[in-house]
Amino acid sequence: MAPANTYELSPYEASLAQMDAVKKASQNSDLSYEVVKSLTVEVGPRIPGSAGDKRAVAWAEAKLNELGFDKVYKQAVRVRNWERGFADARVVSPFPQELVITALGGSIATPEKGIEAPVVMFADLESLTQASSAEVAGKIVFLNTRMQRDRAGKFYGRVVPNRVNGAVQAAKLGAQAVIIRSVGTDNSRFAHTGVMRYDDDVAKIPAGAISTADADNLEAMFETQSDIVLSLNMQAKEAGWQTSYNVIGEFTGTEKPDEIVLISAHLDSWDEGTGALDDGAGVGIVTAAAKLVKETLGQPKRTVRVVLYAAEEIGLVGAYQYVRDNKDTLENIIMAAESDFGAGQIYQLDTRFDPAARMQAGALYQALEDMGITLGNNTTNGGPDVSMLPAQGVPVIALRQDGTYYFDYHHTANDTLDKIKPEDIQQNQSVWAMVTAFMANTDFDPRPAPQL
Amino acid sequence: MAPANTYELSPYEASLAQMDAVKKASQNSDLSYEVVKSLTVEVGPRIPGSAGDKRAVAWAEAKLNELGFDKVYKQAVRVRNWERGFADARVVSPFPQELVITALGGSIATPEKGIEAPVVMFADLESLTQASSAEVAGKIVFLNTRMQRDRAGKFYGRVVPNRVNGAVQAAKLGAQAVIIRSVGTDNSRFAHTGVMRYDDDVAKIPAGAISTADADNLEAMFETQSDIVLSLNMQAKEAGWQTSYNVIGEFTGTEKPDEIVLISAHLDSWDEGTGALDDGAGVGIVTAAAKLVKETLGQPKRTVRVVLYAAEEIGLVGAYQYVRDNKDTLENIIMAAESDFGAGQIYQLDTRFDPAARMQAGALYQALEDMGITLGNNTTNGGPDVSMLPAQGVPVIALRQDGTYYFDYHHTANDTLDKIKPEDIQQNQSVWAMVTAFMANTDFDPRPAPQL
Repeated sequence: MAPANTYELSPYEASLAQMDAVKKASQNSDLSYEVVKSLTVEVGPRIPGSAGDKRAVAWAEAKLNELGFDKVYKQAVRVRNWERGFADARVVSPFPQELVITALGGSIATPEKGIEAPVVMFADLESLTQASSAEVAGKIVFLNTRMQRDRAGKFYGRVVPNRVNGAVQAAKLGAQAVIIRSVGTDNSRFAHTGVMRYDDDVAKIPAGAISTADADNLEAMFETQSDIVLSLNMQAKEAGWQTSYNVIGEFTGTEKPDEIVLISAHLDSWDEGTGALDDGAGVGIVTAAAKLVKETLGQPKRTVRVVLYAAEEIGLVGAYQYVRDNKDTLENIIMAAESDFGAGQIYQLDTRFDPAARMQAGALYQALEDMGITLGNNTTNGGPDVSMLPAQGVPVIALRQDGTYYFDYHHTANDTLDKIKPEDIQQNQSVWAMVTAFMANTDFDPRPAPQL
Repeated sequence: MAPANTYELSPYEASLAQMDAVKKASQNSDLSYEVVKSLTVEVGPRIPGSAGDKRAVAWAEAKLNELGFDKVYKQAVRVRNWERGFADARVVSPFPQELVITALGGSIATPEKGIEAPVVMFADLESLTQASSAEVAGKIVFLNTRMQRDRAGKFYGRVVPNRVNGAVQAAKLGAQAVIIRSVGTDNSRFAHTGVMRYDDDVAKIPAGAISTADADNLEAMFETQSDIVLSLNMQAKEAGWQTSYNVIGEFTGTEKPDEIVLISAHLDSWDEGTGALDDGAGVGIVTAAAKLVKETLGQPKRTVRVVLYAAEEIGLVGAYQYVRDNKDTLENIIMAAESDFGAGQIYQLDTRFDPAARMQAGALYQALEDMGITLGNNTTNGGPDVSMLPAQGVPVIALRQDGTYYFDYHHTANDTLDKIKPEDIQQNQSVWAMVTAFMANTDFDPRPAPQL
């Protein structure tokens, strides 16, 4: 006979209790930090297709197995490997000085002996687009757009076209090369790399980024001089096709094993830093979140799938491979999300949920609100590697992180472990564990994602 | 006939009025910033004896002439030029990764094909000194001492022996090379260079500094691994004797032209940054201070001599040359001082004045106190390039600057103009102009400097 004071928790209360339990467990765990530390110390840089990338794949498989995931497997992803090589830029006249430069990802090389040409400076890509061939032909174009700092990193989207499209726009007007002011919010001599694109119909020219401090210096030269000659020598090269892998670890659901809660990050990084913020942090956060849910609450009801994507940096290559490989089962994904914005604390939850279902996740919103995290919009794309999923009907969320300092380090040699504050990544770990617990162990179902 | 209310200022009041006038003039002038901007943009790096150093000398002569100094002249200084060359360090096993390294100033090269050897880590130079040959012989020594941040930079003196003496201590025990954790307070991947020494009785081994982030990484590898093999290849070289110059500008005194107020900075810099904080800031501050005194108050009563020393970084070479060249007139220096600690705001005046005379400078102390600057001790050496003068009886002062962030950038590629806040260097300019006005236009005479 049941005692008189037996009280059964409502589903709402039960999910709050579960989230509270994983939060408490997370507050006693430094697993996310230890995972990113292991990745950065034992593997370090891991540009797609490189030896470091291959070591990262082996590391990820071993780490997921070591943590006790039920299933650990890989998906082959074909990637083009690109090697940065030597890069040198210097003002030849009137004020001889070296400039810190790095090649943009995918750039062709200069001729072996380099390029020597006058520089023409533009405030932004728009000004370049409006320039004449007479102003640009034969010259090195310098795109000098400053990036402002903010929590959401919203200025990145405004400035990054310099990096992605600068070479094509400059080449259309006959430029020999393009250099950009680094897309970054630091003032330092770290140059920020990142992917750039060519257009098959436009001549390919070399493209590099100079540090913000060097951009200031070059700009200052233009205050008193109009004829500035630069020499540029970059020996980047395509290094052929390689096989990389999405690495996937699962805790199989007990009640609804076919329903998937997909939490993700990307395993690759650029080649100069150790990829701590981008995206070792994400790897640590989602791996630890899944592990904490399993450890604290037991086997989840739905399957929790951790996807560590390959080759995000060169164009979401692993993510598109995932979609192709899983095209018949995408509708089983209850929710997908990626952590790929460093380790700053989470301040907002954005969703892309069926509007009719959205307010049925009240327990989740309450639990997050208790941590100071507000509910945001219902129009997110969920992060780079899941951004193509809403079009397939897959609901996504974004746990938005404080990115005030993210673009100080993004895509530089200075993206290293010391930039991650243990207390910040632990907050992320707690929130991701709570969200994962809620999505895996309740009946909440936000499918399909609204088409905007 | 004089009006009834004629009131003659006391000497005390007159000197306060003069200091107030130059302070007001300074607050409307950005000359110190413009001078360091001109030096860093138009010259940039200027390691002693290099082409950049020669351009710096020409720049300094031209700048002092342009600013209207009465006399501008040079003192030849023989310097050994050293070229940094290529430097590469990488963990070979168990975790292959590149480390950011730079050669210490004066280091010999590795053999052309580099060195590959196990690493042995020590917490500090003291621990190395107590180690046995068996622990060290044939290995690469890694000195991993952290530097703490503080306003006065007092931890520099505790950590810098790693850099200066590490190679000798390691070589005594048979090490093949030494690498140190950079002497710096940043967490970044900039390696900090700086001068090191050999001992004629001890084998010379190559010496480099790795960045603090790389030191963290290497230290983390030691947490799980004891056998760490490093490869090291540095191709620094001695590049022969060259002539550099102290560049000197004067405003000749009207009443006591033989009495000298010597304010100084050093013109040379290390070769990776543009030498903005070290010591372009000092060059801007003392040059602007002298010019503002002349411009505001007219020709000074005593001679104001601005000395821009050569080759400070490699051992105060220009400063010792100055002493030799002026050995018969050092007693005419009323006071000497150097600005060589960046551009942080001044918070304290230290002196080395004849104790009997010291409190006769009350007007100066009052004017500085009104700016929040306290009177400190009477035991300063005045700064590197004037530190040998008190022994010759020359009084010195130190205008102590906030150095909280100085060692983030010191001796790195990141020592660039953007690190100087215009409002901070302007405060320095004001204080130096006030001190210069006081020393040049009053009868205050703190000679001789006390021997401590």
